[in-house]
Amino acid sequence: MQRREKRELREREIIEKSIALLSQRGFLDLRMADIASETKYSMGTIYSHFESKEDLLVACALTLVLEHRIVFNAIADQPVSAIEKIITTALCSWQISMRHPDLIEIDNLSLMPSVWRRATKQRANELNQLHVELAGMFLGIVVEAIETSLSGYEQLDRNQVEQLASHLTHGMWGLCVGLSSTAQSGYASTLCPDGADESDRYFYTNYSNFLKGYGWQEENPEAVFARCRRMAQQCIDQTTWFSDARQGPQS
Amino acid sequence: MQRREKRELREREIIEKSIALLSQRGFLDLRMADIASETKYSMGTIYSHFESKEDLLVACALTLVLEHRIVFNAIADQPVSAIEKIITTALCSWQISMRHPDLIEIDNLSLMPSVWRRATKQRANELNQLHVELAGMFLGIVVEAIETSLSGYEQLDRNQVEQLASHLTHGMWGLCVGLSSTAQSGYASTLCPDGADESDRYFYTNYSNFLKGYGWQEENPEAVFARCRRMAQQCIDQTTWFSDARQGPQS
Repeated sequence: MQRREKRELREREIIEKSIALLSQRGFLDLRMADIASETKYSMGTIYSHFESKEDLLVACALTLVLEHRIVFNAIADQPVSAIEKIITTALCSWQISMRHPDLIEIDNLSLMPSVWRRATKQRANELNQLHVELAGMFLGIVVEAIETSLSGYEQLDRNQVEQLASHLTHGMWGLCVGLSSTAQSGYASTLCPDGADESDRYFYTNYSNFLKGYGWQEENPEAVFARCRRMAQQCIDQTTWFSDARQGPQS
Repeated sequence: MQRREKRELREREIIEKSIALLSQRGFLDLRMADIASETKYSMGTIYSHFESKEDLLVACALTLVLEHRIVFNAIADQPVSAIEKIITTALCSWQISMRHPDLIEIDNLSLMPSVWRRATKQRANELNQLHVELAGMFLGIVVEAIETSLSGYEQLDRNQVEQLASHLTHGMWGLCVGLSSTAQSGYASTLCPDGADESDRYFYTNYSNFLKGYGWQEENPEAVFARCRRMAQQCIDQTTWFSDARQGPQS
């Protein structure tokens, strides 16, 4: 095995074990020494891959965002309309965050300035580039949805459509991140201790109204969401970390 | 001074210095030993107040959510319509998170299960109760807005109006949390390095469409947002930590 290949394999192993540790113990008690002891590598080896805990956390997030890309590609390949792809994407994000809050925390931590600003520039940049790629894919789908399924934009020129699509793209992302964060709070858990149905309802009402505000005029939005929910499940099952089976690398 | 009073003062001092430390150094490197050295209290004293870093973090969040309550009460007292109070609340949350991302990180961390589940029950519960109180205040305003400014709900009975108001309340909270988290990401910062105007535009488009989807029919939503923005500033200025002047306890 080449030296470089060996290094990459080792890095992957450290990341996978770190995700598993984070998921068991939370991030506030994460110590590089625990990672060393778990992986049996020396502290020097760990630090030769990751300069800081922040750097390691961004690397973990990167691994998980690559899983989101698998979901995303699976959605893009579905033989359905652009608006259904948008809804399926939102449903995937929701279902993943409700089932794997431990993993989504890692994603959300990597968005925080006190984390990504302290990671190495190269690692932070890799994560940004991956987000740029995903946002670009999504933007294409949104432009198609504006042209075919959203009303009120007939007068817009190409630039204006793209700007609107960019706002919708980032609004969707924000809504996914925010609805799942607040749904995982202690407050939500006190309010509906075993309320998966109620949570789904809350997700549906807010998402369908968000799209309605952007001009989605659909007589039976619930039926569309129900159809997309089945598709979302199939797309999630194609991943390693998010799949229900979770034959994941950590086991 | 009574013993109890002394204890409370000391607890407050530890919390305020911890917020300042978190804001300077981030949370991954937070060590109880740093808090002890900063406050000149022994580790035993620190631990007699906070069982764990998670407990301390929830206590810090509690202090900041009390500041949100000040903002909130100031908004509730404004002589404006319910829908304008809703928009002003969203604008306050947005402006605070854009100016004080370090503080909002603490709020967002406290929503994560790996944090609040590891805090003491009492502290986690205090935070939940405060969120219950704020959500209840907001819900009353939303019910009024549904009755006076949102269209399409004339057929709903009281229970249905309250359920809708609850979804809107939590959707608003989620949208605030999510839009500000994603706007602070490295990706957003790469995309618009000095784009405060562009960020404001992104916030406005997503918020106004969210409310439009809930039935807000307003001919000139931009003018309403502009009016509410000025009001938001005045309400924020009534706090210690979020005010621009920030004569805050940490200085």
